[in-house]
Amino acid sequence: MSSAVKEEQMEAKAQRTAPAYRFARRMSLIDVSAVREILKVTESPDIDISFAGGMPAPELFPIEAMARAQAAVYAENGPAAMQYSTTEGWTPLRNWIANRQRQIGIDSDTSRVLIISGSQQGIDLVAKVFLDRGDFVVVDNPSYLAALQTFGAYEANFIPIDSDESGMRVDLLERALAGPTLPKLIYTNSEFQNPTGTSLSSERRDQLVELAARYGVPILEDNPYIELRYSGPYSAPLAARDKTGQVIYLSTFSKTVSPGIRIGWIAASAEIIKVLVTAKQSSDLHTSTVLQHALARMLEDFDYDGHINHLRSVYRTRRDAMLDALKAHFPEGARWTTPQGGLFIWVELPESMDGEELFVRAVKARVAFVPGAPFFAHAPRHNCIRLNFSNQSPEMIGEGIARLGKILKSGEVGI
Amino acid sequence: MSSAVKEEQMEAKAQRTAPAYRFARRMSLIDVSAVREILKVTESPDIDISFAGGMPAPELFPIEAMARAQAAVYAENGPAAMQYSTTEGWTPLRNWIANRQRQIGIDSDTSRVLIISGSQQGIDLVAKVFLDRGDFVVVDNPSYLAALQTFGAYEANFIPIDSDESGMRVDLLERALAGPTLPKLIYTNSEFQNPTGTSLSSERRDQLVELAARYGVPILEDNPYIELRYSGPYSAPLAARDKTGQVIYLSTFSKTVSPGIRIGWIAASAEIIKVLVTAKQSSDLHTSTVLQHALARMLEDFDYDGHINHLRSVYRTRRDAMLDALKAHFPEGARWTTPQGGLFIWVELPESMDGEELFVRAVKARVAFVPGAPFFAHAPRHNCIRLNFSNQSPEMIGEGIARLGKILKSGEVGI
Repeated sequence: MSSAVKEEQMEAKAQRTAPAYRFARRMSLIDVSAVREILKVTESPDIDISFAGGMPAPELFPIEAMARAQAAVYAENGPAAMQYSTTEGWTPLRNWIANRQRQIGIDSDTSRVLIISGSQQGIDLVAKVFLDRGDFVVVDNPSYLAALQTFGAYEANFIPIDSDESGMRVDLLERALAGPTLPKLIYTNSEFQNPTGTSLSSERRDQLVELAARYGVPILEDNPYIELRYSGPYSAPLAARDKTGQVIYLSTFSKTVSPGIRIGWIAASAEIIKVLVTAKQSSDLHTSTVLQHALARMLEDFDYDGHINHLRSVYRTRRDAMLDALKAHFPEGARWTTPQGGLFIWVELPESMDGEELFVRAVKARVAFVPGAPFFAHAPRHNCIRLNFSNQSPEMIGEGIARLGKILKSGEVGI
Repeated sequence: MSSAVKEEQMEAKAQRTAPAYRFARRMSLIDVSAVREILKVTESPDIDISFAGGMPAPELFPIEAMARAQAAVYAENGPAAMQYSTTEGWTPLRNWIANRQRQIGIDSDTSRVLIISGSQQGIDLVAKVFLDRGDFVVVDNPSYLAALQTFGAYEANFIPIDSDESGMRVDLLERALAGPTLPKLIYTNSEFQNPTGTSLSSERRDQLVELAARYGVPILEDNPYIELRYSGPYSAPLAARDKTGQVIYLSTFSKTVSPGIRIGWIAASAEIIKVLVTAKQSSDLHTSTVLQHALARMLEDFDYDGHINHLRSVYRTRRDAMLDALKAHFPEGARWTTPQGGLFIWVELPESMDGEELFVRAVKARVAFVPGAPFFAHAPRHNCIRLNFSNQSPEMIGEGIARLGKILKSGEVGI
């Protein structure tokens, strides 16, 4: 054996034990530890009561209606439903969505609706078409953590804007926009924000839309919870106030029908939709035709508003149960939001307490939630936690919050 | 009204008519005109006979089996099937795939299989985790055009390696790898390539895997057609020859079950799968749980191999019909591949003829196909066309090829 061949073989052997993959820089920028921990905990059989995920209650899924619609699609239109289709989506479904959008005051038509594979894909596609490495994105502070991860994957920088009970502090945003670096995008949950549960006030909505128009910075209005209002007056979304085509509206059937079908949509100006279609084509060609057909078919004769009202009534009770339990069991000095809809309550513990330390102890008491720190793009606050109330009965909510309260009052969760 | 306010309003009005969107640089790098043209033509009612898309024959979809499986899933496991699930995919489906992979000699297990939303997403995710702007990707010349677009969206540069009847010229690749710029990725269809229909010879497969190991450059082996072999001896895929974890294997149910379900998979080393899971999480969270459950359920008691054999027999007849028709109708000097499987035949017209000019005239004769130029990453060859034979009856194939032959022999398609 020649020494060159031998050397080569040894080299190959070394590679076999440790291949030196040269991953893209962006992959070192996505911090997944927080999400992984949530998922692991949510799936653990050791947890009795999880307030962790943002999961809708599975007992409320319209299973029978979807099953009937799906069966009809296979029986009557199987070949088309199982074939490739256009990137834009199935026209009857886009029609239904455009119509629903017009009902909430959004100037929408079928040609400006793009069907996507869940709203997470919407965040990814908007990032893909707008963000170059180093661009700046305005986000709520705190913000939806999977959005932060996605923008991070496009190597964006963040401009976190603090929020209060009325949502993003638009006055602070105005100051940031007047600064030297014009951001490429503003990302916000205008309604029942993830993680805080708060909504942007009507006045601030107008101001935000005006700022976007004045500075020419598009807003990605991520509005997955709009149908889930339990109290308080309705306020038109940013997209319904937009006159300049700067608002990109993102929503989903995940919270109203099922997350497992992975169907959401983007409504935006014709120019933006065109570019998003190109981006989606290279991302996954199109969203499942089978499920688009089934969903459109179901919506033909399904009492969607009746179903939504039922969801609202069940989730309202759960929200109230959690608010009551927090009042009964959480220690002096803890404060929390009173969301008028959505899936989450945000708790600020007394400054001396640590959300991640509470998490570790809570898991031992078989209760899960998400510590607040990863929702902050920059300096995390360590005394916050996010609680989901949609996926537990009022009884279990009371029990779980009581267990958390007991740990907090034990004095074991100091910093 | 102050002049400042007036100015602002005029500015806003200007923006209303033409918002100055600042899209990311990558969006100017994706050339979609070719794909758009294909789709438009494929959908046009003016076309009698389309050889354009890469569509499987819808009359062969296992509609009843999927419908039964889907109904059973809704009836027996509806809440879980409609809920969020893990990014990696539904374990019973991953088990089935890992088992099938082992049957073709790939060292695979469930933990190293990632379910994706169609194989296009696989190309996107692999690009996302490996490619920084300006990185080099080796591609077949010609290559699958949607892959070229996806790599383009990550701002990659191409190293196209010419291919012949035995696939990529690995000798040319070796010379390229020895050059100053080490590519980040090698992308290839090893079997029944899109667009040429040719397969990589067994000898070249070994050489290619050896080169990847020696240079530490991963191969994305995109193998959507492996089950569709109509003649010739089986040859193990690159992934079955890989000993160093440098082959990322990508395949799909699109050609064997249905493209409308959008389910494919990636099998790779544990380290690569881990990074791909992170990338997929930020792209679309996970693939439709509803359809993963239904597909896994169908595969439990479906005669998959019997179904594949039926597909092979039907497509073999269509391939043969097209080869016969080409021989009967195409002019002297035209040459074409004789694929042993897959969906495509690649025709080189005499040098003096132009594929795009033929396309324009063919559409007038109500026949569609795809001109060959967009499949070349760099200098396109203009005398090539791609013909799909899977989605037309032998009679229509004969008729369509006869129409094309008539145009070619008319002398109207000169350069």
